Amino acid sequence: METLLYDQNVDLLHTTVKTMKALVYHGPGQKSWEDKPVPTIKVPTDAIVKIFKTTICGTDLHIMKGDVPEVTDGRIIGHEGVGVVEEVGTGVTNFKKGDHVLISCITSCGKCEYCKKGMYSHCTDGGWILGHLIDGTQAEYARIPHADNSLYPIPAGADEEALVMLSDILPTGFECGVLNGQVKPGDIVAIVGSGPIGLAALLTAQFYSPAEIIMIDMDENRLEVAKTFGATKTINSGVENVLERIKALTNGIGVDTAIEAVGVPATFELCQEIIAPGGHIANIGVHGKSVTLHLEKLWSQNVTITTRLVDTVTTPMLLKTVQSKKIQPNRLITHHFKLSDVVKAYETFGNAAKEKALKVILTNE
Amino acid sequence: METLLYDQNVDLLHTTVKTMKALVYHGPGQKSWEDKPVPTIKVPTDAIVKIFKTTICGTDLHIMKGDVPEVTDGRIIGHEGVGVVEEVGTGVTNFKKGDHVLISCITSCGKCEYCKKGMYSHCTDGGWILGHLIDGTQAEYARIPHADNSLYPIPAGADEEALVMLSDILPTGFECGVLNGQVKPGDIVAIVGSGPIGLAALLTAQFYSPAEIIMIDMDENRLEVAKTFGATKTINSGVENVLERIKALTNGIGVDTAIEAVGVPATFELCQEIIAPGGHIANIGVHGKSVTLHLEKLWSQNVTITTRLVDTVTTPMLLKTVQSKKIQPNRLITHHFKLSDVVKAYETFGNAAKEKALKVILTNE
Amino acid sequence: METLLYDQNVDLLHTTVKTMKALVYHGPGQKSWEDKPVPTIKVPTDAIVKIFKTTICGTDLHIMKGDVPEVTDGRIIGHEGVGVVEEVGTGVTNFKKGDHVLISCITSCGKCEYCKKGMYSHCTDGGWILGHLIDGTQAEYARIPHADNSLYPIPAGADEEALVMLSDILPTGFECGVLNGQVKPGDIVAIVGSGPIGLAALLTAQFYSPAEIIMIDMDENRLEVAKTFGATKTINSGVENVLERIKALTNGIGVDTAIEAVGVPATFELCQEIIAPGGHIANIGVHGKSVTLHLEKLWSQNVTITTRLVDTVTTPMLLKTVQSKKIQPNRLITHHFKLSDVVKAYETFGNAAKEKALKVILTNE
Amino acid sequence: METLLYDQNVDLLHTTVKTMKALVYHGPGQKSWEDKPVPTIKVPTDAIVKIFKTTICGTDLHIMKGDVPEVTDGRIIGHEGVGVVEEVGTGVTNFKKGDHVLISCITSCGKCEYCKKGMYSHCTDGGWILGHLIDGTQAEYARIPHADNSLYPIPAGADEEALVMLSDILPTGFECGVLNGQVKPGDIVAIVGSGPIGLAALLTAQFYSPAEIIMIDMDENRLEVAKTFGATKTINSGVENVLERIKALTNGIGVDTAIEAVGVPATFELCQEIIAPGGHIANIGVHGKSVTLHLEKLWSQNVTITTRLVDTVTTPMLLKTVQSKKIQPNRLITHHFKLSDVVKAYETFGNAAKEKALKVILTNE
Repeated sequence: METLLYDQNVDLLHTTVKTMKALVYHGPGQKSWEDKPVPTIKVPTDAIVKIFKTTICGTDLHIMKGDVPEVTDGRIIGHEGVGVVEEVGTGVTNFKKGDHVLISCITSCGKCEYCKKGMYSHCTDGGWILGHLIDGTQAEYARIPHADNSLYPIPAGADEEALVMLSDILPTGFECGVLNGQVKPGDIVAIVGSGPIGLAALLTAQFYSPAEIIMIDMDENRLEVAKTFGATKTINSGVENVLERIKALTNGIGVDTAIEAVGVPATFELCQEIIAPGGHIANIGVHGKSVTLHLEKLWSQNVTITTRLVDTVTTPMLLKTVQSKKIQPNRLITHHFKLSDVVKAYETFGNAAKEKALKVILTNE
Repeated sequence: METLLYDQNVDLLHTTVKTMKALVYHGPGQKSWEDKPVPTIKVPTDAIVKIFKTTICGTDLHIMKGDVPEVTDGRIIGHEGVGVVEEVGTGVTNFKKGDHVLISCITSCGKCEYCKKGMYSHCTDGGWILGHLIDGTQAEYARIPHADNSLYPIPAGADEEALVMLSDILPTGFECGVLNGQVKPGDIVAIVGSGPIGLAALLTAQFYSPAEIIMIDMDENRLEVAKTFGATKTINSGVENVLERIKALTNGIGVDTAIEAVGVPATFELCQEIIAPGGHIANIGVHGKSVTLHLEKLWSQNVTITTRLVDTVTTPMLLKTVQSKKIQPNRLITHHFKLSDVVKAYETFGNAAKEKALKVILTNE
Repeated sequence: METLLYDQNVDLLHTTVKTMKALVYHGPGQKSWEDKPVPTIKVPTDAIVKIFKTTICGTDLHIMKGDVPEVTDGRIIGHEGVGVVEEVGTGVTNFKKGDHVLISCITSCGKCEYCKKGMYSHCTDGGWILGHLIDGTQAEYARIPHADNSLYPIPAGADEEALVMLSDILPTGFECGVLNGQVKPGDIVAIVGSGPIGLAALLTAQFYSPAEIIMIDMDENRLEVAKTFGATKTINSGVENVLERIKALTNGIGVDTAIEAVGVPATFELCQEIIAPGGHIANIGVHGKSVTLHLEKLWSQNVTITTRLVDTVTTPMLLKTVQSKKIQPNRLITHHFKLSDVVKAYETFGNAAKEKALKVILTNE
Repeated sequence: METLLYDQNVDLLHTTVKTMKALVYHGPGQKSWEDKPVPTIKVPTDAIVKIFKTTICGTDLHIMKGDVPEVTDGRIIGHEGVGVVEEVGTGVTNFKKGDHVLISCITSCGKCEYCKKGMYSHCTDGGWILGHLIDGTQAEYARIPHADNSLYPIPAGADEEALVMLSDILPTGFECGVLNGQVKPGDIVAIVGSGPIGLAALLTAQFYSPAEIIMIDMDENRLEVAKTFGATKTINSGVENVLERIKALTNGIGVDTAIEAVGVPATFELCQEIIAPGGHIANIGVHGKSVTLHLEKLWSQNVTITTRLVDTVTTPMLLKTVQSKKIQPNRLITHHFKLSDVVKAYETFGNAAKEKALKVILTNE
């Protein structure tokens, strides 16, 4: 009897399963904007968020090329966004239906050994899973596991579009670049790579009032952008001798902090060449190959080299800096699309240099 | 004419100049215990120290092979030792004739930008100069520049022989390995290399009560020594699979801190393989070649890699730990020689494995 | 009438409700070992723990005197203990029935602003609530809210009795005294108060190898205990001039760290008198009155004064130090009772000086 | 013969001993601008600086009232200024005649235990001695002991007048208030006292991008100034209920950092009332009386209270922030006088509220 009733329910549900549109990966080079079931609560700590705005990350381009083998056919891509809570599981206490929320790219359970020490990136039941190991945010709805620790309330009156930059790019530039690089008042900082991540490091480095922020890139447009974002010097590595310029700017000593925001051997090599004794090399770049570490020179130079997958542990702090206007994250946004035009948005973002694109916003209208 | 005058002066001086015995480098493979003038005060901040006890460093072996090209023919070798102040310049205020002193391997002026931030290793008028750029301590007397900041008073009743270990080896193991490695109570630490420097790191790591200190080496004798020094586990990398052992000992996670105390690519490679997410690789080894840094794996592992030439900024702290018997540095001493037998001592120290030698003490009797 | 109805209800329940014995507070000076319903899961993040061993805290004595007005008639006392998980709510994922667990005195939700920054003591849905705002652990069973973040798994083979010391006393001495006091190798530390908390600070201070730990108390027995626990000096403040002794022991400079482990104005005053320039005063004591802060003297002394309600954020670290035998918490245990003899245990613990009692263990047999 | 010549020189000198004008303290309420001998090198580490610009400190007013008993009749007052090196002792190597220099209010020998740990304020042969224990800078010339560590080179092209603010007031606000208060991006900071020191804290707090800086004072003019200096909120404690306002501004939680910049019991009391759990109270004020510390409330609030006499260890960092225009110290300067009008300048500075005076500049023309 009870079973029967249950089956009837299932049948009833079946006829009414809600569908949505989402960007789905179908193997290298294959993606489509297609119908998918609206996600549902799977465990009590889940929340379902109706996506309001999302964006595309450089990592998403890598996924689309097939460079991230854990991402399998059928996966909804995307790990950034803001939205409205549609439904919460019974274990969610910080949020309720109707709340406006910022989605962190990193899922944190809040109760494993890593989460307890603030290293959410290595959460044993989370980390970077959205649009990677589970379905993501380039869709009309997304299921967010461990919602209490992986969503953040959006303050009333906030510029929600700007906050999309806090899902990933700003905490990445800040935690992996600026905090790990230990930027201090009066320091000389070099940021190698003036793409969105390098610019996020540039914006957040200014929280600590360094004397100089030298931006290095081969794209003149991006260097121009960097100047308007607060870079005190720019070096076009395509046409200038970077090492000579840095020496000239630092009395031959080198920079206090070198932030690597590209992810190839040549840029990491450059960081080693320009670092001052006692300096910090903070790697942000996602590297596909090993690099050469010049310990034959650096062993005696008292340098610190750090790596980090963003933990988003600073999201509350970043929210406060945005609300108090210490930083304007929307300056990173260059293009707008409807969410349904996401495939077109990928084209634009994939030709970033030509399109002068930094971050695109996709709005679910 | 001028030469003549000069020679005359020399002759005149010759009749009164005091001479001493010293170990002199005469090019690769060439050294001798020979007569040299007793050093004299050159600038007011100098002190002349009558050497009481000194030792030989692994670096001295490299010098003797010709691996350190800045060391030129005629140089007196040695950068460690204790002794008695024989004379001080007019600018020296912390010491006077008759004071028993510990000589730091690092000369610090106390007033350059680096010294002011505790990075004495890069002192613009000091750093490692003894037995390197100026004459050193394997002699009956040595001139110590910037004496007020480069000598330390020996507390009454101290075991002066033991304090020779504080000239270089203990601060090196402590600062470059333990402090940079951020060893904490309850941690799992691996030390790659159980030579004198690795053992110095082992002794000083225990200041912070890690749960495990795993010592890795190919020399079974040195591993036995490590056990008596406080290693909780030892791994003979010549006969065991280190990576498998470490995995078994750490639930597959790796170690919190890996201290590199050898200085070759293979040992630095090992450190990268065994480090846990969030862990610290602290390099002590003097590297002659570049190494491969596996950023393709480590970029997301939140690791910190440090290098350092010892600053000896912790010498006052280490003196307190020795005086309070928190550490017994004399356990590193395996052999004793008269200073006049220094050439024989080099032979023993140069065959450390066969001789089961850690540190030798040379006494100026 | 209502009573009748109530009794009927009770009778009805009686056929199924399980009862247990527990120590219940009934107003100042009134407590009894009486029947209470076995607690049940109230929210999905709860666990029910069958108490194996518990203890009495100095705070419990204060409660019994009526000094803690938030504790109301009918409350089961106690906030320490180890036990076995009897049942978990559907939201608990780290533990299951049968797991042996350590109960933290501090309840942490793991998802409020305070928990995220490691300040569990101020958890907005937890903090110190056990045996205070909700029923506690001096009972056969206890309900532990937010079990995933408030219980810790007991490693196989551990001395479970010793781990009762990790519920409160060891993290309190360690976090509020040793960590806040920034104890370093070679330091001179004074601990004012040689009761259980002061002794916990003494045990954990040794993680950092200070040169001297000077224990100050008026109870000669406790000072004798302190010596066996690692105190390098003891001062009986009842018969000696503490300030003169400290001056003599520190060349007139004072101590690097002064840990206040009593909670009265006179002991805090003493800490101010004996602190060296640049030193740290770490308050552990629960104070009932304001104290005088001598800013007219201290304003220029570069001192740091800290207060803290224990966060138990170091419990995982402490568990590792216990498992690796860097500390023997069971040395704090002087008396054993059956849990059912808890009233007698209170008498003994309440006459600690006479009974030479430190911590008592109550076993639920 | 040589002796004779020497004596003649002495005689010659004697007749020509150079005199200068200086502000001399002659007991409480007694000062005069009078002739004094130009200071000469006493020990080889001295330098004689011809004062170019100096200023008056609140402490100087206290001295003039007789509140600083160590200052005796005949003392030249003043511990701030910039000037030109006139002569250096033989032990000075960082400076030579003609160098433009910033004088630190704190003299540092660079070689005592305190200097080695960056606590120059407690230098055993220095600290605050200028215009206190030895003659100071409100004069045409000043002798600066330990010149290599107590003077700083003025960069070419710098606004020298602005740098007078770096002798004392800016490092004081920064080290004692901002650094000790651990101001972080996004924080809420309250500064109690909007005088020159409080404003120096306000300027330098902005190095770390706090969300809010709430300035509290009773002088409406100074609060107006604070707004133009970057205060985000001001509270006139003479007419508003500070506690209520702070509660309203912080959701009832309190401020992350409270900086005490007055030095009386009432303002320190206020800091205790407004501090959030986990917050920092950083005392800058020079207190003449003890204060009440509410440990009965604060013992469990995880607060940190710091005191500090400025060390000026951040002077190099501050110079970099001035040179890179991260801060405009000259905004603190409200009045200008000739050095010879110093007595008049004292009158103006002594009536700061009425004169709307912050810092005065005295120029030696």
